Amino acid sequence: MKALVYHGPGSRSWEDVPDATIGEPTDAVVRVDAVTICGTDLHILGGDVPEVTPGRILGHEAVGTVTEVGSSVQKVAVGDRVLVSCVSSCGSCRYCRDGSYGQCLGGGGWILGHLIDGTQAEYVRVPFADNSTYKVPDGVTDEQMIVLADILPTAYEVGVLNGAVRPADVVAIIGAGPIGLAAIMTARLFSPSHIVAIDLADSRLEAARKFGADTVVNSGRDDPAAVIGELTGGLGADVTMEAVGLPQTFEQAVRLVRPGGHVANIGVHGAPATLHLEDIWIKNLTITTGLVDTHSTPTLIGLVTSHRLDTTPMVTHRFGLDEFETAYDVFANAAETGALKVLLTAPRQQ
Amino acid sequence: MKALVYHGPGSRSWEDVPDATIGEPTDAVVRVDAVTICGTDLHILGGDVPEVTPGRILGHEAVGTVTEVGSSVQKVAVGDRVLVSCVSSCGSCRYCRDGSYGQCLGGGGWILGHLIDGTQAEYVRVPFADNSTYKVPDGVTDEQMIVLADILPTAYEVGVLNGAVRPADVVAIIGAGPIGLAAIMTARLFSPSHIVAIDLADSRLEAARKFGADTVVNSGRDDPAAVIGELTGGLGADVTMEAVGLPQTFEQAVRLVRPGGHVANIGVHGAPATLHLEDIWIKNLTITTGLVDTHSTPTLIGLVTSHRLDTTPMVTHRFGLDEFETAYDVFANAAETGALKVLLTAPRQQ
Repeated sequence: MKALVYHGPGSRSWEDVPDATIGEPTDAVVRVDAVTICGTDLHILGGDVPEVTPGRILGHEAVGTVTEVGSSVQKVAVGDRVLVSCVSSCGSCRYCRDGSYGQCLGGGGWILGHLIDGTQAEYVRVPFADNSTYKVPDGVTDEQMIVLADILPTAYEVGVLNGAVRPADVVAIIGAGPIGLAAIMTARLFSPSHIVAIDLADSRLEAARKFGADTVVNSGRDDPAAVIGELTGGLGADVTMEAVGLPQTFEQAVRLVRPGGHVANIGVHGAPATLHLEDIWIKNLTITTGLVDTHSTPTLIGLVTSHRLDTTPMVTHRFGLDEFETAYDVFANAAETGALKVLLTAPRQQ
Repeated sequence: MKALVYHGPGSRSWEDVPDATIGEPTDAVVRVDAVTICGTDLHILGGDVPEVTPGRILGHEAVGTVTEVGSSVQKVAVGDRVLVSCVSSCGSCRYCRDGSYGQCLGGGGWILGHLIDGTQAEYVRVPFADNSTYKVPDGVTDEQMIVLADILPTAYEVGVLNGAVRPADVVAIIGAGPIGLAAIMTARLFSPSHIVAIDLADSRLEAARKFGADTVVNSGRDDPAAVIGELTGGLGADVTMEAVGLPQTFEQAVRLVRPGGHVANIGVHGAPATLHLEDIWIKNLTITTGLVDTHSTPTLIGLVTSHRLDTTPMVTHRFGLDEFETAYDVFANAAETGALKVLLTAPRQQ
């Protein structure tokens, strides 16, 4: 089969690899019908995630069709159309029993395209298939579903729920890439009074408006603190979310929040930040970090199915699977191309 | 009257000052019967709290007798024996209405011995007296009560409640000074399985054992990570609390917590720390900071009155008010003197 293989920082190619096969009785093999690229993949290619070793097939988001299941798989059958989630779950460890699947101690967690081969391929082996896939409801398209593999639950759980967005809050979201946009979209579920999107690229800020930001700030030109100060009587935002993954944007998120507020880090980071405890020890802040657990995936599927969330504007560029290298270039240069999520699809096989 | 006056970093003296008087109709004047020194006062003398200006009377903890009340004070009368809390509350601003008195926008918050003259004096002006004092129940001594002015609510709210201690948790408390000891005492209210106290002074660790630590670690000799690893199968503590106020102890608190755990900063800090986002972005941590709100003071008074909390072992040294300078020396050299809280009392006047 063909797959997108990581060859060390800055290097990747679409190439022939051995076929995905069942390894454990709890595995399924899924034919990849639709797959996308995540900002995390760019962090991996940038060298920020050193656990990913050369030779690894990248990718942790897909919608596909089950082609084979291991002997102990109970709930997933050959022919099922499934969402392959970025987080796998053993289902029985201390963390899985607590709904913290992202921290699974039983061999799950974020492993696809990280510690084992991922979804940017014609086929993928999915461990713990019963707990790590979700059936795609009838009438829901691959394109509607694909963003539920990672960015929607990540933005919702790690940003909106960890940040504890409440009605009437002023919410500042730093970074208007796909995760930031998904955070805007899902923050609105809690009726904040004002969502402020902050980015350096006007194209992304334009997208932020479309996804529901009330105010956008190009922080290369304008001072977000002044804008938020205006909205909050000088206090700061109730909730700030970091959706970039840089020390300076994290530090900005801490500066922009009000006393008693929440800072939710969503970004993937490769370097430490400075935490100004001399300013914040007295400010009653709550700062959270996190990998998604995907405990909210059924909730989000329900919201998409009932048309409460419209995920389709997230996909801006479409390619065939064999155009993976081009798709990476388009996604990596999102500030110029305007790419949000790029969708790669296999030719229909039935 | 006499008072302990701050004259800039490293300098203080017990000297004559103008009498405390009613300034606003919501004020009371309280004769100080018992007063103590806080680790925060040492941070002020160390220059860590630059808002405190030379000439300021220090102190934010006292038990005393009301000698005068302003015209609009309703609930406090001359002759009442009251606890003067470290946090004053206007009662009507956004934060006070939310129970976040420490962040009061109406002129309250931590102001005594910080932004206005404090309790280390023969008399103190207490603003917003109705909201900022608590009547001492009959049968409760000044010595039992004094630790409810700051250290008990601080350790309980900023450490135990922010840290979300739950039954069966492994809790690591860094710093076994009065705040750390109060955190040990109040963490026990939630039945953790194991409290680990970490400090560099054996005398403090001995006190930690008396206050309920199950394990003590002198981090000058032994590795707390190894001890906690042993208790948690290598995962880390469920909750860590920083009760020192140094970058290195904060960073240690972040290192010692398990994925999904809580880091509660209680310490007063004068310098930034390094936050290793490259390690923790994926770990689902919750990090909290905070000034006490004292919303728990009635709860804690109830626990003391009902003998559920025995606060008396906290006071180790007793002085007359005119011995303030000696008391500071004894408290500042706690590692040698074994001082926890030092109590200064005025001669009984009735």
